[in-house]
Amino acid sequence: MAVSDKVVELAKRRGFFTVSSEIYGGIAGFYDYGAYGTLLKRKLENLWRKYFVGMDENFFEIEASNIMPEKVFEGSGHITNFVDPVAKCKKCGTFHRADQIMEEFLHENFEGKTVEELTQLIKKHNVKCSRCKGELGDVSVLNMMFPLAMGAGKDTVAYLRPETAQGAYVNFLRHFNILRMRLPLGLAIIGKAFRNEISPRQLLLRQREFTQAELQIFFDPREVEEHDNWKEVAKYKLIIYHAKKMEKISCDDANKKMKIPKFYLYYLAKMQKFFLDELNIPEKKFRLRKLTDEEKAFYNKVHFDIEIQLEELGWKEVAGCHYRTDHDLKGHQLVSGQSQEIFYNEKKFIPHVLELSFGVDRILYSLLELNYAEDKDRVYLKLPAKLSPFTLAVFPLVNKDKIPKKAEEIFEELKKHFDAIYDDSGSIGKRYYRQDEISTPVTITCDYQTISENTVTIRDRDSTHQIRVNTKNLKTVLTKFLEGENLERLGKTVK
Amino acid sequence: MAVSDKVVELAKRRGFFTVSSEIYGGIAGFYDYGAYGTLLKRKLENLWRKYFVGMDENFFEIEASNIMPEKVFEGSGHITNFVDPVAKCKKCGTFHRADQIMEEFLHENFEGKTVEELTQLIKKHNVKCSRCKGELGDVSVLNMMFPLAMGAGKDTVAYLRPETAQGAYVNFLRHFNILRMRLPLGLAIIGKAFRNEISPRQLLLRQREFTQAELQIFFDPREVEEHDNWKEVAKYKLIIYHAKKMEKISCDDANKKMKIPKFYLYYLAKMQKFFLDELNIPEKKFRLRKLTDEEKAFYNKVHFDIEIQLEELGWKEVAGCHYRTDHDLKGHQLVSGQSQEIFYNEKKFIPHVLELSFGVDRILYSLLELNYAEDKDRVYLKLPAKLSPFTLAVFPLVNKDKIPKKAEEIFEELKKHFDAIYDDSGSIGKRYYRQDEISTPVTITCDYQTISENTVTIRDRDSTHQIRVNTKNLKTVLTKFLEGENLERLGKTVK
Repeated sequence: MAVSDKVVELAKRRGFFTVSSEIYGGIAGFYDYGAYGTLLKRKLENLWRKYFVGMDENFFEIEASNIMPEKVFEGSGHITNFVDPVAKCKKCGTFHRADQIMEEFLHENFEGKTVEELTQLIKKHNVKCSRCKGELGDVSVLNMMFPLAMGAGKDTVAYLRPETAQGAYVNFLRHFNILRMRLPLGLAIIGKAFRNEISPRQLLLRQREFTQAELQIFFDPREVEEHDNWKEVAKYKLIIYHAKKMEKISCDDANKKMKIPKFYLYYLAKMQKFFLDELNIPEKKFRLRKLTDEEKAFYNKVHFDIEIQLEELGWKEVAGCHYRTDHDLKGHQLVSGQSQEIFYNEKKFIPHVLELSFGVDRILYSLLELNYAEDKDRVYLKLPAKLSPFTLAVFPLVNKDKIPKKAEEIFEELKKHFDAIYDDSGSIGKRYYRQDEISTPVTITCDYQTISENTVTIRDRDSTHQIRVNTKNLKTVLTKFLEGENLERLGKTVK
Repeated sequence: MAVSDKVVELAKRRGFFTVSSEIYGGIAGFYDYGAYGTLLKRKLENLWRKYFVGMDENFFEIEASNIMPEKVFEGSGHITNFVDPVAKCKKCGTFHRADQIMEEFLHENFEGKTVEELTQLIKKHNVKCSRCKGELGDVSVLNMMFPLAMGAGKDTVAYLRPETAQGAYVNFLRHFNILRMRLPLGLAIIGKAFRNEISPRQLLLRQREFTQAELQIFFDPREVEEHDNWKEVAKYKLIIYHAKKMEKISCDDANKKMKIPKFYLYYLAKMQKFFLDELNIPEKKFRLRKLTDEEKAFYNKVHFDIEIQLEELGWKEVAGCHYRTDHDLKGHQLVSGQSQEIFYNEKKFIPHVLELSFGVDRILYSLLELNYAEDKDRVYLKLPAKLSPFTLAVFPLVNKDKIPKKAEEIFEELKKHFDAIYDDSGSIGKRYYRQDEISTPVTITCDYQTISENTVTIRDRDSTHQIRVNTKNLKTVLTKFLEGENLERLGKTVK
């Protein structure tokens, strides 16, 4: 059984995520997060917030509408450019993404080909409808945004935003003034984005409604070759995939040899650190892929995708670092007629933008897959403790005598310091199984010895090793264990 | 100048909220939250989460899609019932909410009148278009949901959810099974809802996109006359507005005399406590309005609106407690064909639902208005410290000598324990003014004495009283002050 199938089974069984509106059969490309999935997602979002918004005193989170007027997307270019090439089957009427149907046919990448090129390719290779084998029509383009008609007259046209970024751009100027006219200024948005994907697929990886966490850093292009904390990353090695080769290269070298600006590299290094140090993604499953000039959007001066390697799905983009220059603000200035220029350091100009963009659902899925583990008939999720829905679980061995009362007391006390869950249903074995599957790093069991000697057993999710500890030392032992100390060793030093 | 205007001015000036896509003129009914507004909103949401989701070990937050298939809204009844009566002007084409235009004309409430009744009323009173004085056509109904067409063929119809509640209902059965088949089971959603309001107005109070925080409690109707923690609220007095009279009545009396079930009253009391004790809403500005049988939806067995009194806008609904019975799950069972029955306590049945529903933006606006204060030419927001965007601010008196370095040291230390902001731009007076307006409860200034004697001044936002404290006692004094101790008194006891 494929790992991705196992993860989906686990996600359904424990309610991490399921098809949205499942009792109605759902619609392709929509998922709901269940109780444990939502706890995990909130922790991931809060970690992101703390790490990226916390990087600089002048970085802030804002919240912009999901629905924005049509003019915004004229300014951003989405009306014209945010399109997919599609081919309709003349027989059954099914629409296909033209580049994808070609890719499935020839196992090559056809992204970025023009409508004419794709039409020619389909004819040349005589590609048919994958559903009914009918003939495919000429390729045309389809805008991927969801339009909405406002008001009773339905005359005001608006769209669901296809990315959170535009919410930050249209808010830039007011915030620059409110936030004491300083650069760099960071505006972050954690929120939903919506895309009418023609063939949504690959679980949480290509949805029609998904969560982005994006940070737009507005800065002075004259300062692109500097960063106050450059020293912090100068010797740090980036894991770069470029021209079909993987190499480790220090930020200093990337600046000198690859001619990537320091301001950009500083944040790229921070992004890598977030994945490796905060999310514990293994180095071997991680890479920064430098996009070629053909691959990247014309307005992106430098563009790295951050990719994670999944078992069956291969290398998948989960984030990106985009040097968007003044492209977006210029577009909004042109269409809105409102100057986006600022006066800063004795010069009038439109700031440049560095975008740090993250797909929250993709990262969450990757975390589930990379941490999925089996040990004989045991399944467990070895998520870092700070991301686990619960940090610990408390069990009464049996639901009789004085045991539940004692277990509840311990639970109430631990709840003050840890994200704790109380579990008294089913056999102990079943409860271990359940907590392992939802990744609870440590479980505490109260038994008859707890009553007689005031000790409990503590079990480590990963090793299943157990130690017995006096309740008066419980908080200390748990804190140390969650900070990374070995449970077996702790058991020998603390009683 | 009206208080609401002053609040809007402040909100714009400091970036709490502004018209969405402002540089394009925006669309009616959409607002963005700025840096400080978002900090306030997150704190409000987290407080809600901690209080309501934290009430019971079997209550959980989930996250459901904003977009849901059409069938969901057949099951919920929104396709048929979620409509507004509208009258179109025959001359200029403007649509009017028929009940609102009658209300403006006769200053009475016409909510709930039928299409025929409204058509007759408009004719009888010869009500004209408020824009061009043209004749109004017959009243018809307009569905308030935003429809969306999915896929390239645009053949799958879906809607943006008009309330978060349905996301919990369609997820109930899976979660009941995953979460160990216990009742009561609570599923909370904090998220966006979307309504195509014909005349959005009153700032954050009637938006087309807004944030709800809703908790759906699924329970056994046989247990409606009990609650495990009933004793906690039995003597607690509810502030009830009923039959045009305000009265304070204990939960016990409300149960016995008003025949409201205990299970309902327990949560109604908790809602009141949340507003009074957690959000510090003054008792005089707060009421639980019991809806009459004509006012409430037919499926709501008991329905109280929670209202806050605003200066110019009057009593406004900010939350509601709705005993929805098995109406929703029954509807989904009928349309989806999937049984929603559970087996619990030796009986097979569809659980009943108690809905605790909160309008996050309305509450946030009310907090701004009720805490808006003026003192000569000083404007300050006296929000509770736990809701203030920042808990404290650190100022260097001047940006020279050793002062900024010392101030930064103090700031870095305090940041570990408090939500702190560093402010060194403009005169001290301007900085006090700024922090007062964004409601920072306490400011710490470093001056020459800080260098020579290791003391700082601490200033209280509300009284503007200042004390001087040794930095070694700073954390203790701040903690005590934020817990509610008087600063002047603290200044006399701690040096």
